[in-house]
Amino acid sequence: MLSSRIEKIFNAVDADAVFTTADDLRFYLTGFESSFGCVLTDQNGTVFYTDSRYLEAAIAKLSPFGIKVEEMPRGKRPADLIEGYKKVAVPFSRITAQEYLQYSAKASLCDSTAAFDAAMIVKEQAELDAIKKACVAADNAFVQLLPRIKEGMSENDLAAELEYLMRLNGASGTSFSTIAAFGANASVPHHETGASKLKFGDSILVDFGCKIGGYCSDCTRTFLFGDDKKHEDFKSAYAHVLKAHMLVKEQVTDGFTGGQADAVARDYLQTFGLDKYFTHSLGHGIGINIHEAPRVSPNSGDILQNGMVFSDEPGVYIAGALGIRIEDTVTLKGGKVVSLTDSDKKLLIL
Amino acid sequence: MLSSRIEKIFNAVDADAVFTTADDLRFYLTGFESSFGCVLTDQNGTVFYTDSRYLEAAIAKLSPFGIKVEEMPRGKRPADLIEGYKKVAVPFSRITAQEYLQYSAKASLCDSTAAFDAAMIVKEQAELDAIKKACVAADNAFVQLLPRIKEGMSENDLAAELEYLMRLNGASGTSFSTIAAFGANASVPHHETGASKLKFGDSILVDFGCKIGGYCSDCTRTFLFGDDKKHEDFKSAYAHVLKAHMLVKEQVTDGFTGGQADAVARDYLQTFGLDKYFTHSLGHGIGINIHEAPRVSPNSGDILQNGMVFSDEPGVYIAGALGIRIEDTVTLKGGKVVSLTDSDKKLLIL
Repeated sequence: MLSSRIEKIFNAVDADAVFTTADDLRFYLTGFESSFGCVLTDQNGTVFYTDSRYLEAAIAKLSPFGIKVEEMPRGKRPADLIEGYKKVAVPFSRITAQEYLQYSAKASLCDSTAAFDAAMIVKEQAELDAIKKACVAADNAFVQLLPRIKEGMSENDLAAELEYLMRLNGASGTSFSTIAAFGANASVPHHETGASKLKFGDSILVDFGCKIGGYCSDCTRTFLFGDDKKHEDFKSAYAHVLKAHMLVKEQVTDGFTGGQADAVARDYLQTFGLDKYFTHSLGHGIGINIHEAPRVSPNSGDILQNGMVFSDEPGVYIAGALGIRIEDTVTLKGGKVVSLTDSDKKLLIL
Repeated sequence: MLSSRIEKIFNAVDADAVFTTADDLRFYLTGFESSFGCVLTDQNGTVFYTDSRYLEAAIAKLSPFGIKVEEMPRGKRPADLIEGYKKVAVPFSRITAQEYLQYSAKASLCDSTAAFDAAMIVKEQAELDAIKKACVAADNAFVQLLPRIKEGMSENDLAAELEYLMRLNGASGTSFSTIAAFGANASVPHHETGASKLKFGDSILVDFGCKIGGYCSDCTRTFLFGDDKKHEDFKSAYAHVLKAHMLVKEQVTDGFTGGQADAVARDYLQTFGLDKYFTHSLGHGIGINIHEAPRVSPNSGDILQNGMVFSDEPGVYIAGALGIRIEDTVTLKGGKVVSLTDSDKKLLIL
């Protein structure tokens, strides 16, 4: 299965060799987590170069797939490994300009980014299973968080609790910096989680995700810490955002473009004059990286297919007043949207 | 103070303009945390381009320093901003090959990496204060962790507790993935924190750090979870690693090269035949990034100076048997090494 990934990339590029040092692509090709390594494939096969720390584990993991493991030769740079090839495919999106200039001195180069994007956009069952695990850990952590939310705690405290609970549920870490925003702070979609203290009647927006087995989850919930009876606008907007979120799940099928999926939510919000407050895309692809293909945004022509994983996250942000976002990680299965994160989305009032 | 940083970079490069989009360099130049932005300086001044989310906060923060803030023009890529200049300095270590090719189509380029490295290597007082805060949070978290360590907990659990405690002590997050290794797992210097369960008599190695105000701390402690009386080798090696760590603090002064500092620890360990088990560098620079200049490794010619911040982290790793590392974040002040992390390093037996 892993060796077929390598083959797919090698066949998709017009080059004598495929070479990468990038963490995410190396993990995709080998399934082996390491902080340093190079994968080099040519018509004779694949070699994984790493340092002494990882040798033993890499041999055990990769030999069954016919991948040769070698220690990175002393005093050599990654660029030295491509010497002797005519044309090498490297991911221009993942190497620095410094590396590009070093590599260019050794061989003619072409960009493998599109080949990786195309291969990674549809997930295999094992990848879906890993993402589901990361989603379940996030769901469980969110449910366990609720009784711990207390008046006077800071956004930072709440984020700390949630990250801790995700780890206790098996996460190796977060998939991005947790966003916690109280009250009007939530009107900034990427609010910097800070020292604001929670008080009765505040809304709470929390955008969180974790990693398990190298794969990400992504989820947002917005709810109320007590009802101070000043929440009519909030409740009305919440109902519309939730409806937009659910319409995407009901209507999007395989064959939709990312732009058409985005329009399902945006057009619904427009009928209530709320589209001008929906200031970001409906979603983004999720996998080894928290943001990857497909693009699920206005004008995206990416075709959504079974096995793709992306977020469904409409939002409404009214500056200084309120911010609401409802997000699940979803996949397409049998032509239909299936939710991978799935904690309750009915408006929660603590 | 911040505007002097920009001036320093502009004067150090031979170009009409300095341009960067890199998170760390943008934060260094502006002191403003954001997930997107471009800083463009020419002889007429500096413009910070960002998106609508950050405009208000950026204007408040940057106007006092004479930095103009503008919204990123719609439909423009960062590369479009350098159009019209003859020669632009960009950090080749921080842009991708894709960006390099886009930028090259707009202007002649030179590499600003060395100018940034040289400017960022010596810390200003405000930077030292931020690093100290991150160090104190890590120290406090470590002390609070000790009574929570219980038989049967996993490495993952221990890492989760420590990260949680760092956040409760004010950290915005970790400065790198926490390493927790029980028993012989510690003999791999970058062990993948996992499901191993703690049992009586295990050694515990924990390598951890956090970020406050955008700056990092880094600390490692190794200790025993009970003494099963099978630890003679461990105790002897521990005493030697601690002595090597302390000798660095006692002997290194400003004017030492990184290589000479490394040799203080390595030569001492050699007299006991332990240098062959010291398989990494003595240290690395610490600041906005967890690994930056100066290099504190064999053969490094980087001259250590007052105001630099780096790690002092000798270690001994005997495969399958034991791993010991003792690390503090330190700085040079008045020619002498001063410890910034400083929790107790006497061998601890829980």
